[in-house]
Amino acid sequence: MNSGRLRKAPENFIARDGVARVFAEARNGRRDFLRGAFAAAAAGAALPAAAQAAAPNDGDPNILNLPEHTRGLGQAVATDGYGKPSKYERNVQRRQSPGLTQTTQASVSFAPLQSLFGIVTPSGLHFERHHQGWWDIDPSKHRFMVNGMVKNAKVFTMDELMRLPAVSRFHFIECGANTGMEWGNVAVPTCQYTHGMLSCSEFTGVPLITLLELAGADLKNGRFVLAEGGDGSSMTRTIPMSMIRSGEVLVAYGQNGEMLRPEQGYPLRLVVPGVQGVSWVKYLRRVEVGDQPYGAKDETVHYVDLMPDGQHRQYTSIQECKSVVTTPSGGQQLLDKGFYNITGLAWSGRGKVKKVDVSVDGGRSWRTARLETPVLSKCLTRFNIDWVWDGKPAIIQSRATDDTGYVQPTYRQLRAVRGTRSIYHNNAIQSWLVEESGEVKNVQLS
Amino acid sequence: MNSGRLRKAPENFIARDGVARVFAEARNGRRDFLRGAFAAAAAGAALPAAAQAAAPNDGDPNILNLPEHTRGLGQAVATDGYGKPSKYERNVQRRQSPGLTQTTQASVSFAPLQSLFGIVTPSGLHFERHHQGWWDIDPSKHRFMVNGMVKNAKVFTMDELMRLPAVSRFHFIECGANTGMEWGNVAVPTCQYTHGMLSCSEFTGVPLITLLELAGADLKNGRFVLAEGGDGSSMTRTIPMSMIRSGEVLVAYGQNGEMLRPEQGYPLRLVVPGVQGVSWVKYLRRVEVGDQPYGAKDETVHYVDLMPDGQHRQYTSIQECKSVVTTPSGGQQLLDKGFYNITGLAWSGRGKVKKVDVSVDGGRSWRTARLETPVLSKCLTRFNIDWVWDGKPAIIQSRATDDTGYVQPTYRQLRAVRGTRSIYHNNAIQSWLVEESGEVKNVQLS
Repeated sequence: MNSGRLRKAPENFIARDGVARVFAEARNGRRDFLRGAFAAAAAGAALPAAAQAAAPNDGDPNILNLPEHTRGLGQAVATDGYGKPSKYERNVQRRQSPGLTQTTQASVSFAPLQSLFGIVTPSGLHFERHHQGWWDIDPSKHRFMVNGMVKNAKVFTMDELMRLPAVSRFHFIECGANTGMEWGNVAVPTCQYTHGMLSCSEFTGVPLITLLELAGADLKNGRFVLAEGGDGSSMTRTIPMSMIRSGEVLVAYGQNGEMLRPEQGYPLRLVVPGVQGVSWVKYLRRVEVGDQPYGAKDETVHYVDLMPDGQHRQYTSIQECKSVVTTPSGGQQLLDKGFYNITGLAWSGRGKVKKVDVSVDGGRSWRTARLETPVLSKCLTRFNIDWVWDGKPAIIQSRATDDTGYVQPTYRQLRAVRGTRSIYHNNAIQSWLVEESGEVKNVQLS
Repeated sequence: MNSGRLRKAPENFIARDGVARVFAEARNGRRDFLRGAFAAAAAGAALPAAAQAAAPNDGDPNILNLPEHTRGLGQAVATDGYGKPSKYERNVQRRQSPGLTQTTQASVSFAPLQSLFGIVTPSGLHFERHHQGWWDIDPSKHRFMVNGMVKNAKVFTMDELMRLPAVSRFHFIECGANTGMEWGNVAVPTCQYTHGMLSCSEFTGVPLITLLELAGADLKNGRFVLAEGGDGSSMTRTIPMSMIRSGEVLVAYGQNGEMLRPEQGYPLRLVVPGVQGVSWVKYLRRVEVGDQPYGAKDETVHYVDLMPDGQHRQYTSIQECKSVVTTPSGGQQLLDKGFYNITGLAWSGRGKVKKVDVSVDGGRSWRTARLETPVLSKCLTRFNIDWVWDGKPAIIQSRATDDTGYVQPTYRQLRAVRGTRSIYHNNAIQSWLVEESGEVKNVQLS
């Protein structure tokens, strides 16, 4: 159903004059909005078309060609104690980009953004970024240590952590390298691969500041915390104490109502709202309080921004304001002219999304989209806007503004500062070309 | 981990004097909050206890007893294109109450509320209520009709519906019979079975009013809409036009970011915020506009409230303000005294939750809990509050107030009006008895 192709609607599912008029005419009965589909209904049949169009009549005139699901007895409750999506959705998967990495353990899978709705990412489709593969760690054996500049170093079991005061909050997580293949030119065809290192969940856990206080951390001189993961990559990242002190940084065990998934660091991961995903250390086993940045491998060699002058920027971990239209998007196919709901996602590592403007003419004119509520800080925001496609080539873009006033840049603006040799922190405006054939392609405007 | 038992923490995980003092003392280094667990750490070892406590040393002194997940290479990305929970969480399931119904097709499975966090219910654990079993209907064959008092009856394909203006909103859904077994006395031991016909999701779909307008519905004289499902139960329910006109009622295809699950009516269900689940018609195939209530079987014979005078109340479909503590709750076991995070859920079919009070002494005294944000209309709200258990018997209750000022009633108050012979719409305050042994039991105060 939702596999990335927009299928053909009846011919008169078209309204060059705009949606408002179509709706008004429909209300007044002067126009049949979807006439092609209504031949049967117009004859006055009270029986739904679904019933008419279904299973063959098995000879009993009383059965009236009812489909099997209307005639029969369905499946039992709790057929699955933990349910699965419909078999018709099996094409909606997170996927690895073939050839992107040399191993499948130090690699990425991308979330199918073009098939998703709202702001919650189903945990089964959450993007993955592993540095040494994923593990399913026994939580009864897992320990979490707080040490460094603390009065009493402490080690917590999961049970101890889960008895402490908890909070639940919705936040996006984006890999710093999301859209990273697009710096120089168009590299991949679909929204899944351009923007799919992005997901959003409701996280539950203990504010890290609570745990530091329990250990008697030196919150005055201890200006940085090192977070360390327990998998083979021993991921270590520096988190500034200012961020922790705000209470935003969580030691999380819950995600979208249940325990974290193994691929997301079960049983414990750091949640660092607004910051690139690599700092959300998975399989979290230790935090150490210190008085200076730790300069770990993954913040000095990787996850730095190569600038045009050959130097690199470091500790630029906040994900700036960004957005992307997810439908229509690259790889999809509009099979006729007429009305479409343009929809997409916007987010900012600095706070809330204030506004999303959408263009269908490559940025010459813009209309402001409708934001779905709730609009939350450092969280995905879903936007929607009406569009009537006239069948001519169109370039669709979205441009987000956050509540600091920061406006998402064009590629021209971004490259003027950053050049084209970076991997990380590409938040430029994305362009999708709708060709006359209805095919949607990834393009970059010069 | 999260299977409903709260495991033993060190002995001095206790603070009769309250959490604030424990935290202050920890900060000042005068008290070791979790001393028992910190023996190893106190020796100054920099190596996490997780590492020390793990796999046997295989003879190589450099390996330092590191656990396998720190030494080895993990599993590949996209091992599952659609991921699953940890194997250690396999006990967290939705479950049927044995013997509650005569068949497993016309039955119920309950969500494991005692194991969930935040407000989003994982779709795999969403409660089920089927009247004739569930189906996985081919969406390319599904049709949705609008007829009755309309200028032009219409039939929509899924593709047509999914091109129309969409909205996304978080709402709870509660079966009208939730907590229905508890009218007369304590019937079931756990929160899963007392309150588990309750779930909450982000729904995406088209406002029903949009579809009625497209069909040129008579919105003045057409005061009611009949919604009809396509499964064997042919569920039919009357929805007042006043509710639809507000734009709240959705014809939904999306749930928690993906397409509806088959058990939840894939590919189309009605979303009627604040109203009992039976009106959220699954496998939705038709709505008919009429000028009076339809008096369908499931609103005249079932889902009515038997009153003490022998008459029954009808069309009482809005789920009034209610709450429940999910931890600690019936069937759980507190294995020691000390600090606990009391947590639970509150909701109202009339609007937002304004306040949740919690008592640990059976309602003699109350403290106001902290509400997690966002607090949304007709949506679950997560509350948390600190508690230090002194090891004596305690009765834990929560009492929600919504933004209309309505206060959740006691059993005494509810029964004074409704008697004890109802099945539906029990929103009384739930009591959990913590015995000296730490065992938590479902009790009712007279």
